[in-house]
Amino acid sequence: MAQQPPEKETPPPCGNELNADAAHPADRAEQLEQLSLAEQMCVLRHLPADEAAEALAELDGQVARDVLENMDADDAARILSEMWPDDAVDVLDEVDEGHRDVLLNSMTPEDALELRALLTFDPDTAAGVMNTEIILVNSDASVDDAILQIRSELEDKEMPYYVYVVDSMDKLVGVLSLRDLMLSKPGTQVRDAVGKQDLITVSFDADKSEVARILGHYNFLCLPVVDREGHLMGVVTHDDVIDILQDEASADMLGMVGAGQTEDVDTPWLTSVRMRLPWLVINMLNSAMSAFIVYMFEGNIAQMALLAVLMPMVANQAGNTGQQALAVMIRQLATEKFDRRKAWFAVLREAKIGILTGMIMGMLACFSIMLLTDNLLLGAVMGSALLLDMILGAVAGGSIPLILRALGRDPAQASSIFLTALTDGAGFFIFLSLAGLFLLT
Amino acid sequence: MAQQPPEKETPPPCGNELNADAAHPADRAEQLEQLSLAEQMCVLRHLPADEAAEALAELDGQVARDVLENMDADDAARILSEMWPDDAVDVLDEVDEGHRDVLLNSMTPEDALELRALLTFDPDTAAGVMNTEIILVNSDASVDDAILQIRSELEDKEMPYYVYVVDSMDKLVGVLSLRDLMLSKPGTQVRDAVGKQDLITVSFDADKSEVARILGHYNFLCLPVVDREGHLMGVVTHDDVIDILQDEASADMLGMVGAGQTEDVDTPWLTSVRMRLPWLVINMLNSAMSAFIVYMFEGNIAQMALLAVLMPMVANQAGNTGQQALAVMIRQLATEKFDRRKAWFAVLREAKIGILTGMIMGMLACFSIMLLTDNLLLGAVMGSALLLDMILGAVAGGSIPLILRALGRDPAQASSIFLTALTDGAGFFIFLSLAGLFLLT
Repeated sequence: MAQQPPEKETPPPCGNELNADAAHPADRAEQLEQLSLAEQMCVLRHLPADEAAEALAELDGQVARDVLENMDADDAARILSEMWPDDAVDVLDEVDEGHRDVLLNSMTPEDALELRALLTFDPDTAAGVMNTEIILVNSDASVDDAILQIRSELEDKEMPYYVYVVDSMDKLVGVLSLRDLMLSKPGTQVRDAVGKQDLITVSFDADKSEVARILGHYNFLCLPVVDREGHLMGVVTHDDVIDILQDEASADMLGMVGAGQTEDVDTPWLTSVRMRLPWLVINMLNSAMSAFIVYMFEGNIAQMALLAVLMPMVANQAGNTGQQALAVMIRQLATEKFDRRKAWFAVLREAKIGILTGMIMGMLACFSIMLLTDNLLLGAVMGSALLLDMILGAVAGGSIPLILRALGRDPAQASSIFLTALTDGAGFFIFLSLAGLFLLT
Repeated sequence: MAQQPPEKETPPPCGNELNADAAHPADRAEQLEQLSLAEQMCVLRHLPADEAAEALAELDGQVARDVLENMDADDAARILSEMWPDDAVDVLDEVDEGHRDVLLNSMTPEDALELRALLTFDPDTAAGVMNTEIILVNSDASVDDAILQIRSELEDKEMPYYVYVVDSMDKLVGVLSLRDLMLSKPGTQVRDAVGKQDLITVSFDADKSEVARILGHYNFLCLPVVDREGHLMGVVTHDDVIDILQDEASADMLGMVGAGQTEDVDTPWLTSVRMRLPWLVINMLNSAMSAFIVYMFEGNIAQMALLAVLMPMVANQAGNTGQQALAVMIRQLATEKFDRRKAWFAVLREAKIGILTGMIMGMLACFSIMLLTDNLLLGAVMGSALLLDMILGAVAGGSIPLILRALGRDPAQASSIFLTALTDGAGFFIFLSLAGLFLLT
């Protein structure tokens, strides 16, 4: 965590000196990612185990997996033992199941036992991202004993900013910051230093995005994770939450348009094709439905080809309006607790925005077309279709994430694709049928 | 920061008891937001100033502004003085400039001076979000003196997890965690405890998204902010970064579709209309250009109305392909340092994905149309147009954020609107001109 000077060491004979200057594990990991697999393994083998562990924890998941699967199992186990358990579990989650067992069997039984327990949790839950190396203090102890205990345990624990106070049944009764402890009068009992706290904790099976929301809401450094009986299982720390927030923001944006939620520019391109193709096919089927609507009005278009010119403008404009509403709603669901009443008020708000912007854009379109074509009725049809489709787009954009969430799905997933299907289909239908009623005989 | 028990107090006579149970400022703020302005002001006036300050810091910006602008200036100044300077500046940034002066003049000259200095910084830079209440330790002091100093300053400072070590010229020479200090042998000089550090700092005028990226990269709790000469100005803390990340993720998604980057469901709807309308107009002009392309081929459509049925499918599919590339690239730019070479490799990757998905979707479309219409040539024209437009969409989706960034603009801003203009216009042109060449006489 702290900014430590690089320790002196003889550079490993791995055919490069990239790593010699890297002061921080995150930078060393970035440099490692530039090397070949053989060089990566060589560098990691020659680093002190604790530094190798820190670097491995920072490596991209797929790079770390390749290294662990190809390295000598004993070397790998030695590095894994030095990692914080939550980081080790993150890496092991990537490794092929068979090889994971080989690695775990090469570790000491205690280390393996702890990691196996952590590996059973869903990596998308609080328990899947929590850290188990925490300082527990008994509520009967004195503040002075607690400080002594902390000083003796300090080296083994990741971030002793808080100590967790438990009763004789190991249930969490309170949280003290180092600062609280240092400000307590000598001789005070830990129980009295805790006082009566409104404990804010999270259940072990809570979704990790919920964990991030709570920690962000309260500006905590760590959030205790408890089981159903209130026993402390571990803590989620602020740096895990920063990772979760970055992942969630990406997942929202990528999911909205039907890309793979875990994609980045390092994803193998064929993997990206496999993740995106199903949504492209769904999009194609959606747009085939819109095309069928146009096909029903083929006769109208044959009579007046100008309709085909204006038709995409209606759909495009309503699509854009809807996406604006969609983006606002998806982000709101990602950052805030959101009760049902407030959610539907937000849809109403989008509807009002849709009506006003629809009226403005509709009138603009109406006048422009009247000026360009001298066809007053065509302008009126275009303007009305635009207004109606934009209102629909705004309401749909606001509702789709809420509906997806109510169905137990990710509110962002493919929402843009569903929205476009709706605004395209409805836009074509409204415009072409109004045109059929008022413009053609 | 710590989870403190609520202090006992007589509930204020404000016609509600909502706030009596709120243990945490963030929860109290959430409850305050449900009240009328008069009730909000009454509750804040009756709270102890430090608690009112904490609650005010957590309030939504627009709510906080209304409270400050309507409250008695002396009451408001009393609360502002109790806030951490970075929080006070955030709130004051929202207040009308004239009233801001009134409030500052009601504070003590020292407090006002500090806030006025902070208010000069751009709120989107490191200096605009930094905290100035930090613990400075001279490098000549002993570790024991430093610990004594920290214990005496602890109550005034926001988060003493690190102490900042400066030389006699006030230049930053190192950072020590509380943990480092507690582990140092008594009698050690602070200078020796620091050793030789590779200092990771950020310049005061760095963009706040860059600050978030660096802090997230190194998993730091705080990042020191320095001026051009290396003097320490303040620190940005992990909780600020969590706020920045949530804001940036929202700004990316909202900006992409041309909504206001700071919009949420609490934004007054007319404000939203004002923020979205310019982009809707630009979108309309873009789609008018696409419509003009269709208009050039009006004769073709009059001959074969089926073209108008298929034409939107080409544009829609290429638009979706492009948005997938766009989302990947925007998120990558948001979370990682990204050199020019790697960026264009990422565009190449999108091009490959576009070619393969384009070939697959093109063939699907080609065969479906041949089956449905028995028109082999129409299928071939549709398939080729789809392939070409999807490749264009993928390359454009990958490039637009890079181009916007190279132009010094936000890589997300309106990117989806530009992309759709391109895929629509090109899709119509390619499809209708291929149809003109091969299908019509």
